[in-house]
Amino acid sequence: MTNRFINRRDLDFVLYEFLDVESFCSWQHFSEHDRQTFDGVLDLSTAIARDCFLPHARTLDEQEPEFDDGRVILPPEVQEGVDAYLESGLMRAHLTFEEDGMQLPTTVSQAAIGMMYAANVSIASYPLLTAGAANLIRALGTDEQRARYEAPMWEGRFFGTMCLSEPHAGSSLGDLTTKAELQDDGTYFITGTKMWISGGDHELSENIIHLVLAKIPGGPEGSKGISLFIVPKHLVNDDGSCGEHNHVTLAGLNHKMGYRGTVNTLLNFGESGSTRGYLVGEPHRGMQAMFHMMNEARINVGYGATMLGYAGYLCALDYARDRPQGRHPDNRDPSTPQVMLIEHADVKRMLLAQKAFVEGGLALCLYTAKLVDIQVAHPDEAVRAEATMLQALLTPICKAWPSDYCLEANHLAIQVLGGAGYTRDYPVERLYRDNRLNPIHEGTNGIQAMDLLGRKVLSDGGQGLRLLASRIETTAQRASDDETLAAHAQAIRAAMGQVAGAAAEVGKQAAMGSLRAALANATLFAQSLGHVVIAWLWLEQALVARRALETCSEGERDFYRGKCSACDYFFRYEVPTIEAKLAVVARLDATCIELDPNTL
Amino acid sequence: MTNRFINRRDLDFVLYEFLDVESFCSWQHFSEHDRQTFDGVLDLSTAIARDCFLPHARTLDEQEPEFDDGRVILPPEVQEGVDAYLESGLMRAHLTFEEDGMQLPTTVSQAAIGMMYAANVSIASYPLLTAGAANLIRALGTDEQRARYEAPMWEGRFFGTMCLSEPHAGSSLGDLTTKAELQDDGTYFITGTKMWISGGDHELSENIIHLVLAKIPGGPEGSKGISLFIVPKHLVNDDGSCGEHNHVTLAGLNHKMGYRGTVNTLLNFGESGSTRGYLVGEPHRGMQAMFHMMNEARINVGYGATMLGYAGYLCALDYARDRPQGRHPDNRDPSTPQVMLIEHADVKRMLLAQKAFVEGGLALCLYTAKLVDIQVAHPDEAVRAEATMLQALLTPICKAWPSDYCLEANHLAIQVLGGAGYTRDYPVERLYRDNRLNPIHEGTNGIQAMDLLGRKVLSDGGQGLRLLASRIETTAQRASDDETLAAHAQAIRAAMGQVAGAAAEVGKQAAMGSLRAALANATLFAQSLGHVVIAWLWLEQALVARRALETCSEGERDFYRGKCSACDYFFRYEVPTIEAKLAVVARLDATCIELDPNTL
Repeated sequence: MTNRFINRRDLDFVLYEFLDVESFCSWQHFSEHDRQTFDGVLDLSTAIARDCFLPHARTLDEQEPEFDDGRVILPPEVQEGVDAYLESGLMRAHLTFEEDGMQLPTTVSQAAIGMMYAANVSIASYPLLTAGAANLIRALGTDEQRARYEAPMWEGRFFGTMCLSEPHAGSSLGDLTTKAELQDDGTYFITGTKMWISGGDHELSENIIHLVLAKIPGGPEGSKGISLFIVPKHLVNDDGSCGEHNHVTLAGLNHKMGYRGTVNTLLNFGESGSTRGYLVGEPHRGMQAMFHMMNEARINVGYGATMLGYAGYLCALDYARDRPQGRHPDNRDPSTPQVMLIEHADVKRMLLAQKAFVEGGLALCLYTAKLVDIQVAHPDEAVRAEATMLQALLTPICKAWPSDYCLEANHLAIQVLGGAGYTRDYPVERLYRDNRLNPIHEGTNGIQAMDLLGRKVLSDGGQGLRLLASRIETTAQRASDDETLAAHAQAIRAAMGQVAGAAAEVGKQAAMGSLRAALANATLFAQSLGHVVIAWLWLEQALVARRALETCSEGERDFYRGKCSACDYFFRYEVPTIEAKLAVVARLDATCIELDPNTL
Repeated sequence: MTNRFINRRDLDFVLYEFLDVESFCSWQHFSEHDRQTFDGVLDLSTAIARDCFLPHARTLDEQEPEFDDGRVILPPEVQEGVDAYLESGLMRAHLTFEEDGMQLPTTVSQAAIGMMYAANVSIASYPLLTAGAANLIRALGTDEQRARYEAPMWEGRFFGTMCLSEPHAGSSLGDLTTKAELQDDGTYFITGTKMWISGGDHELSENIIHLVLAKIPGGPEGSKGISLFIVPKHLVNDDGSCGEHNHVTLAGLNHKMGYRGTVNTLLNFGESGSTRGYLVGEPHRGMQAMFHMMNEARINVGYGATMLGYAGYLCALDYARDRPQGRHPDNRDPSTPQVMLIEHADVKRMLLAQKAFVEGGLALCLYTAKLVDIQVAHPDEAVRAEATMLQALLTPICKAWPSDYCLEANHLAIQVLGGAGYTRDYPVERLYRDNRLNPIHEGTNGIQAMDLLGRKVLSDGGQGLRLLASRIETTAQRASDDETLAAHAQAIRAAMGQVAGAAAEVGKQAAMGSLRAALANATLFAQSLGHVVIAWLWLEQALVARRALETCSEGERDFYRGKCSACDYFFRYEVPTIEAKLAVVARLDATCIELDPNTL
């Protein structure tokens, strides 16, 4: 069994050579940093992931959380991993110095968090859900709320959740029925049931701060009538200590295909007694508020998917290097020694596909993190505005593309290991099962596709798409000058043209009033645009690698050549697949939407 | 939780309307049969699958076989299911009347077996492995071997296995090292270790007959020096009773991702004492002998994959029909009722894809069974010869295509159910896990692709492919006359042309001596040819459905319209994807094969 879960060389390449995070240090906000502090954070997180997360991944899969007399029993390894992470201060890495944080670029803190995902996504979820909830209160809470709830979350005394879905309302949040009734003291009584709540109950922390979507009676119907509430498991006293139980009760656990170490719960509010909630932001503005957390969560879902795919790729690679099996088809001499699995063309194909997907996914996720840093700290307002626009466009792609294709990477990793991959003695089947959640939660990939095509492409009049196209064109121009990349430059121009053409046809249809027909093939559009974005980032990586190859040491050549090969693979095997998909989108194919369900 | 696992209406369609199994009754061999006896068998198998297999599927997944003091402990439900199946006589359905069988067409007996796969593949494996082993002894054993070993297998007193892989030799059987040393009495002593042996030990039967590949010292190297042996767990006395233990010892169990009810073992031969084996057929002809069993096993693997995909589709369909969620994107009024999941375009797309894959897979598997029946019983020798050629071509497709695409159907079924699909409360995630074995065992899909392109397309000089092309052309001509199918007719001609073109380029490369380069993209070729075959069978089904729509009752219209929609889907969304893959094959893309493994 492999112990690799991360390729630091590749991470360094993406951070320092592709995204040039060192250049961020010239911006005021990050001026206290340099490569040394970044490397220190990466070394620390590598050590925690390797020592406190990775060794427990199998145990957490095998010892599912148990429901015992209203309590959740977790294996002790969860606490151990969580404590190590909290003690490291990594959770506060992105906070400002005044907030007792490291004021680190998100690009770097995300790189660090990625290692936790790769090593043990189940443990990583607890602090990351907590950070998500804390970030929301940080952005939208009152000073009093920040002091009472947010501060203890960064300390790790309180953990957090997001409570959106209900048994009858998953994707359709507008239909939720949890009620929030205003009391004389300005607080609300919360009643209802929330479903699929990760980290919804446990004893890892003194308290759990639930961020709950609920409706205040009398408000607008649908999603415009949703408000957001802080609902602590235990009420918090003025001195910060935990007081009485707030009647958030555990109604059951979900037993999942994977991701088993992260307890997933059904919670009742206000059933065994009054549950008190505290409004965050304005009444009826809960959806907008929640999207603060949700956009972050969506990017993290895709990032987690990438890192699970990455861990599987490394395992498959190590296995294929070490396992002798068979001979080449043109060698009929059985007395010759067997070759290693990695020598076979089809195994190379499966490994190269994995590499292209997972390293492509990593580039996407950290590029998106860079957009966050630009928005926070770049001195030029126009640059910041463009980053905002690009991030909006890329968020659904960040969520959906890796959870489709890095899951496919996990599938291929199993296949490379063959029978061994199908056993629980190797991590690849678990990594697949863990990753299988990612196309589902935080908005299914179908929802992401509607968001991408409907909101991010059509509703903004194509501004975001044009910005992306101009960025791609700039890259293509640079690539045209390198004869080994010129064909790829042509291919990505053509591909982006196909995307734009399909979007235009969809736009015409929407303008004629049939939004439903226009969005019918949104998933194929999203997969295709995702491929174009990844192809673009591969071309960028190849440009960096080609330049490096001119001057690098002999020992570094293989790494850069591998980058070029993965880029070639993506352009030769993957980019050509989008034409058929986009043709479906562009012709507004109505096979699915017009299907009579009775005929299924 | 759904209780559907099979769509009898579709099964009847494939058997009676598409493949016209009633016409087989005009052949001498099947002349005792009519639709009534066929229906009787299908009703019986439906009842057994529903009552004795389906209810235990979850239990078998949860209660893995245990290794206890050298014995395998299975949940009692396995015995219950196996006994019901044995008592039904279904295992002997294809045997002749003289053999105490039903002399039933394989097409019908396979239809019956499919229900067992769909309901509980783990139980189904035990009798089906046994049937495979018995069929091999039936074909190649001596009369004495048939009486001693085969007969009790049909009675269910003895079970069977196939023992090919070893810890260091999976795909590369030529490298196996299990030894068979001739003794003075004409028997052999077998020593070695066999890996991945399904049903390798248990107490479901009096005895287990292992069919073991081993090398007789002094024979040729590689796969030409492999012989096949009957190795009983207990020696069988002349009176048919079981005698002393033959020192086949259980060394361990594999703990798998799925398919958990079928015990998978590591077996030692000749370690704790002498293990006696009995040669089947000629020395050193073991691989050819094993292919008797293997070809059957390959078809059954693909068929099992189809039925697991089918069961998942039915579950997703029922869920999508019953679950209200959200509104159409052009309906912004939250006071309107939610629509059912099945109304959403993207859910329809996922269901239609599943339908196209699993009903397409079923048509493929039963069409291939018909080819078996033709070879056994058709009066015209030329027709029989063509069936043999076509079956050889289709066997690797039968194995690989459904295990790729009906697994993809299981993936889509999980997605339709969303969070619910990720829990173990619904069968879809288990069906995925069970099915994930199928692209791996009985020759990985990579191996199937090499077999298809190397042996079945190149080595026979393209005869098989030309035969397929002529069958497809015949179908296309008929479809051209129907204006709703004329575009599909054009599309399949073009697709078959692309396949033939790619095969020709590969053939040129192979003729120039570089077989390794020629086969480098075999998997993409196999996926594409598989798609063409499935498209052809969809066009055939659509022709039947179109004809039926002219005269059928109102109540039947939906079924036939569904067939037409699935055909449309496959032609509009799936067939166009092969062009990009075949372009890779045709240009002999060397990205993968030339990749330096050190750069990964």
